[in-house]
Amino acid sequence: MIAIIKAGTPQSQIDNLVHWLEHQGIKPYLSAGDYYTVLGLVGDTSKIDMDLLASLEIVQSVKRVTEPFKRVSRDFQPKDTVIDLAGTKIGGGSFCIIAGPCSVETHEQIIGVAKAVKAAGANILRGGAFKPRTSPYDFQGLGALGIEMLLEAKKETGLPIITEAMNINQLPLFEDVDIIQIGARNMQNFDLLKEVGKLRKPVLLKRGLCGTIKEWLMSAEYIMSEGNEQVILCERGIRTYETYTRNTLDLSAIPLLKNLTHLPVVVDPSHATGQARLVKPMSLAATAAGADGIMIEVHNDPPHALCDGAQSLTPEQFADVAARVRKIREVIA
Amino acid sequence: MIAIIKAGTPQSQIDNLVHWLEHQGIKPYLSAGDYYTVLGLVGDTSKIDMDLLASLEIVQSVKRVTEPFKRVSRDFQPKDTVIDLAGTKIGGGSFCIIAGPCSVETHEQIIGVAKAVKAAGANILRGGAFKPRTSPYDFQGLGALGIEMLLEAKKETGLPIITEAMNINQLPLFEDVDIIQIGARNMQNFDLLKEVGKLRKPVLLKRGLCGTIKEWLMSAEYIMSEGNEQVILCERGIRTYETYTRNTLDLSAIPLLKNLTHLPVVVDPSHATGQARLVKPMSLAATAAGADGIMIEVHNDPPHALCDGAQSLTPEQFADVAARVRKIREVIA
Amino acid sequence: MIAIIKAGTPQSQIDNLVHWLEHQGIKPYLSAGDYYTVLGLVGDTSKIDMDLLASLEIVQSVKRVTEPFKRVSRDFQPKDTVIDLAGTKIGGGSFCIIAGPCSVETHEQIIGVAKAVKAAGANILRGGAFKPRTSPYDFQGLGALGIEMLLEAKKETGLPIITEAMNINQLPLFEDVDIIQIGARNMQNFDLLKEVGKLRKPVLLKRGLCGTIKEWLMSAEYIMSEGNEQVILCERGIRTYETYTRNTLDLSAIPLLKNLTHLPVVVDPSHATGQARLVKPMSLAATAAGADGIMIEVHNDPPHALCDGAQSLTPEQFADVAARVRKIREVIA
Amino acid sequence: MIAIIKAGTPQSQIDNLVHWLEHQGIKPYLSAGDYYTVLGLVGDTSKIDMDLLASLEIVQSVKRVTEPFKRVSRDFQPKDTVIDLAGTKIGGGSFCIIAGPCSVETHEQIIGVAKAVKAAGANILRGGAFKPRTSPYDFQGLGALGIEMLLEAKKETGLPIITEAMNINQLPLFEDVDIIQIGARNMQNFDLLKEVGKLRKPVLLKRGLCGTIKEWLMSAEYIMSEGNEQVILCERGIRTYETYTRNTLDLSAIPLLKNLTHLPVVVDPSHATGQARLVKPMSLAATAAGADGIMIEVHNDPPHALCDGAQSLTPEQFADVAARVRKIREVIA
Repeated sequence: MIAIIKAGTPQSQIDNLVHWLEHQGIKPYLSAGDYYTVLGLVGDTSKIDMDLLASLEIVQSVKRVTEPFKRVSRDFQPKDTVIDLAGTKIGGGSFCIIAGPCSVETHEQIIGVAKAVKAAGANILRGGAFKPRTSPYDFQGLGALGIEMLLEAKKETGLPIITEAMNINQLPLFEDVDIIQIGARNMQNFDLLKEVGKLRKPVLLKRGLCGTIKEWLMSAEYIMSEGNEQVILCERGIRTYETYTRNTLDLSAIPLLKNLTHLPVVVDPSHATGQARLVKPMSLAATAAGADGIMIEVHNDPPHALCDGAQSLTPEQFADVAARVRKIREVIA
Repeated sequence: MIAIIKAGTPQSQIDNLVHWLEHQGIKPYLSAGDYYTVLGLVGDTSKIDMDLLASLEIVQSVKRVTEPFKRVSRDFQPKDTVIDLAGTKIGGGSFCIIAGPCSVETHEQIIGVAKAVKAAGANILRGGAFKPRTSPYDFQGLGALGIEMLLEAKKETGLPIITEAMNINQLPLFEDVDIIQIGARNMQNFDLLKEVGKLRKPVLLKRGLCGTIKEWLMSAEYIMSEGNEQVILCERGIRTYETYTRNTLDLSAIPLLKNLTHLPVVVDPSHATGQARLVKPMSLAATAAGADGIMIEVHNDPPHALCDGAQSLTPEQFADVAARVRKIREVIA
Repeated sequence: MIAIIKAGTPQSQIDNLVHWLEHQGIKPYLSAGDYYTVLGLVGDTSKIDMDLLASLEIVQSVKRVTEPFKRVSRDFQPKDTVIDLAGTKIGGGSFCIIAGPCSVETHEQIIGVAKAVKAAGANILRGGAFKPRTSPYDFQGLGALGIEMLLEAKKETGLPIITEAMNINQLPLFEDVDIIQIGARNMQNFDLLKEVGKLRKPVLLKRGLCGTIKEWLMSAEYIMSEGNEQVILCERGIRTYETYTRNTLDLSAIPLLKNLTHLPVVVDPSHATGQARLVKPMSLAATAAGADGIMIEVHNDPPHALCDGAQSLTPEQFADVAARVRKIREVIA
Repeated sequence: MIAIIKAGTPQSQIDNLVHWLEHQGIKPYLSAGDYYTVLGLVGDTSKIDMDLLASLEIVQSVKRVTEPFKRVSRDFQPKDTVIDLAGTKIGGGSFCIIAGPCSVETHEQIIGVAKAVKAAGANILRGGAFKPRTSPYDFQGLGALGIEMLLEAKKETGLPIITEAMNINQLPLFEDVDIIQIGARNMQNFDLLKEVGKLRKPVLLKRGLCGTIKEWLMSAEYIMSEGNEQVILCERGIRTYETYTRNTLDLSAIPLLKNLTHLPVVVDPSHATGQARLVKPMSLAATAAGADGIMIEVHNDPPHALCDGAQSLTPEQFADVAARVRKIREVIA
């Protein structure tokens, strides 16, 4: 961290600040210039309140020199993290296609969709059992029963499964689930992050609706700081002023993240756009931008889906997307 | 809900749609015009996927006719909700001033600040025991011990106390707390909302960093739908592109909310701005805009605060704010 | 336009509203329901102040049934607009690659870059002569001299040229320019739009930093309403809360626009991201999303560019991008 | 400006950078630390491309030490700028109330409103003659005739007048106008800013819909850099994701600006909110936040206004607002 001291500050006040910093375990070193003095702070600066420092009368501005994240950083671990689900890999050059319905609805539905997406090229099955809904009066998912149905679909097809956990107390139900999803609204549910951090199971962390890239990586840091190194980041659109799409898919986050972190990055174009006809072009675009995978909603009967039918592809549409995505992977290789 | 059917749609397709809606328990009624046909949907339309309906080939657009919230709505309850904490009232013409430190740090600190803010005109004491922090390496609060210290400060001063809960399992610790705060990052932590909805204790619900007014009210609806009618809304700034302030305080939300809902609305200018020198003008502005109260960070020693010292007022500064706020209340009466 | 009348409104008040609307040349027709009454408005509703109507006591809400744009709409003209620059086509299945420096600096520079980008596959040359800069103290471009240099580069290479106009009075200088660019900051400079609308020359209209898709199309409508039908839309990133990138490139706008309008859509990943290393992945992504072209900053000596060197590719980097873009076009065909 | 050089950078590469900077007239001075080296840049750093510098391999990050604005800065001129319109003052402790219709419609209308707002306490008359409208098919204002009518109203009432200019060529018509308004959509119409900068007449510069405070001040700098020192800043709401209000009024900008600049700051709550019932609370809030004035739309017949009737107050409502605003000025004095 660097603090710029205003020109003309009396030495005694600078000494006071240096003393105060040393008191907090920070080693400051000064480099005085003609126009301003730079105070470099070395040590565990995470304890320093940057805003407070900036608010002092003698301080012109404060700047972090290093990014605040550690374990998630590519500086910390240059090699790509690769998640391995009994052979199905995510990251490090492997590309995953996650597909399935928004919600698990019935035994027949989830088995049917699982078989269809497997045939079309998906290698992971998604399906919601616990559903975060804006309204308390909307369908909230089948809960534990939904997870059971997903496990049957896994047994039937061999596809690893991913489903969302909404609170700490549900986690025991996720023992046989392959990837735990943390939804956008829980990106900064820090207690939930710590708890999944204690597991030794892959976690897919969605970006919050207004999560900055820095906050998102810090949330991944919460999980990793508890010892769980298997984190997958999932871009799913951010909130902007534009209303034609539900959210604005931020694809430039992909190459940015690939530079900042070693963690795999996948993209969910279904939730971002909320419209089935945008899913194909945005899936291709996400792949071209360098994503490590895509997550797509597929339903065998979109008009009768209990949730988010408007953004679901049919298995046929999905098969077309999957085939083209594979070709785009070749172009960017 | 109203669906506009495209001009020239064959009657058979309209009949199909009507049949499909009826199958879902909705009674549609048609009013055909020269240019388009309007389909009014009556019944429990919360089960209808609006986006799906809009995505159908024959549907031009779909619009909700009524707001989706019920219990929070002023249509549902025209009279202001008034929270009564053993005589200290919030809402219905009463104005509350909530003050205290960002974090509870020590016994002496919290008792000292409590006495100082009481003397200066505060009628509720705030203080964080569980702290949501962006980084896992930042101070996370004293936890249960912090709540104990707050309770001592309450005993010492008689001020009711408010403090934040971050997860379901902490709630038993809040038995003697007067108001449970749900933080901005948990505005859509639906399981936590349901759980505090089962309590019979006031809940202060902060607006999420990118929470729309509609989503915020729906989150209050989650609490009320479980039977807890004592909800206070707290505007604390939203995320925008502007970087000079930490967040952008949306004061126009106050008169808007007073029209949409019967719930009290308070404003937290400290977290919104992140800068002590902006707290006074924004406190006065919030009051002039019609807020039912303000929540201000006060610390007896801001430069040594463990958290958010940059935005804390000294007790003297706070006393000045409190006095002027009372005068503004007279002007707008 | 449709107005929903509140339940229980006395007939006399509805009659008053109907009378008032008829007085403004609008033919309203009523369809009364048990729960609310729908008032359909037919005629030139562009004269109706929608907000005013919505503010009336008896009106619950108001909704436009049709989009406000006319000439730009695909309903108005189903067939793709194709711009033809002496054989170089934009739109209708043709893909254009526009490349060149941010600013025209010297005769040698622009000729050099023009030859390099032509060799690498560009078919249109870009270069700024009039530069909109945030600060009055920054380099403002070479002006008329810059346009002369561009015309020489055109003569030398045969590439059509595009450059930005900032005000009405500059337009006579653009007589031999092939495409006039309207910059993001001028997207709603309506007098400038009207003036270029009077020309019979292609206009590339950049999306404003906070331009909605609707506003952007209405600005294109300004140009078309004056008789100029050769409009190209250019997505260049929108302003969001994220600070890692200069702007957030909204690629979902591409398939949305292709559905709403017949006009060609190109993407400028250089200005959107502000970082050279993001230009390649975002160029490929834009192409995969279905853009009709891309516009890329290329400089033969980025570190010495007078403006925006940080986002410029070298000719070698550009050649790699151009080659891969062509392959992605094949995948999505 | 300060550049942080990465640890471990060979001295030869640092020397190259120093040489390159010196070549551009910048004097760099180095202060090497154990963890990184700080390069302070002194001189006219406005010529340095900050993004380019940051993109160099050996540079970790770059930071401006001083704000980029000069003449608008309170550091440059500590004393408040006071605009004096033949006795009516704006800034420096004086408070102005600007009122009038959105558009000038008829001779009778503007004279009637002018008399009414004068009686109710307004000291400046507003009214639009040239109207920027999103749609080319909407009413565009009376133009020169509107200005004539405003001048008659001025003669009749003695109120100074303010009206908007949309392009350079209109300026001769504004010779007898007291304040030229630059609208939000033209905040970065740099050629227009330069041109009004050449006049010696007050300019009210509205904040752009997504204008940052820094950009807004730089636009004021454009005007001042041409010699016109009479600039008034006008906050009118920024674009956010919230849709209940037309824009989000950013009142925290007021105290921020009062600290950064000596220029007067007024607030337009009518355009920000778009709803008449929000105008009163937001006028009071703006005043409490320390604004130097407010600008309010008043129409003698809002339902028949040709433009923006939904946000206009009646003269009676305006009189109530004006009276309370005066009282709030006393509270904050």
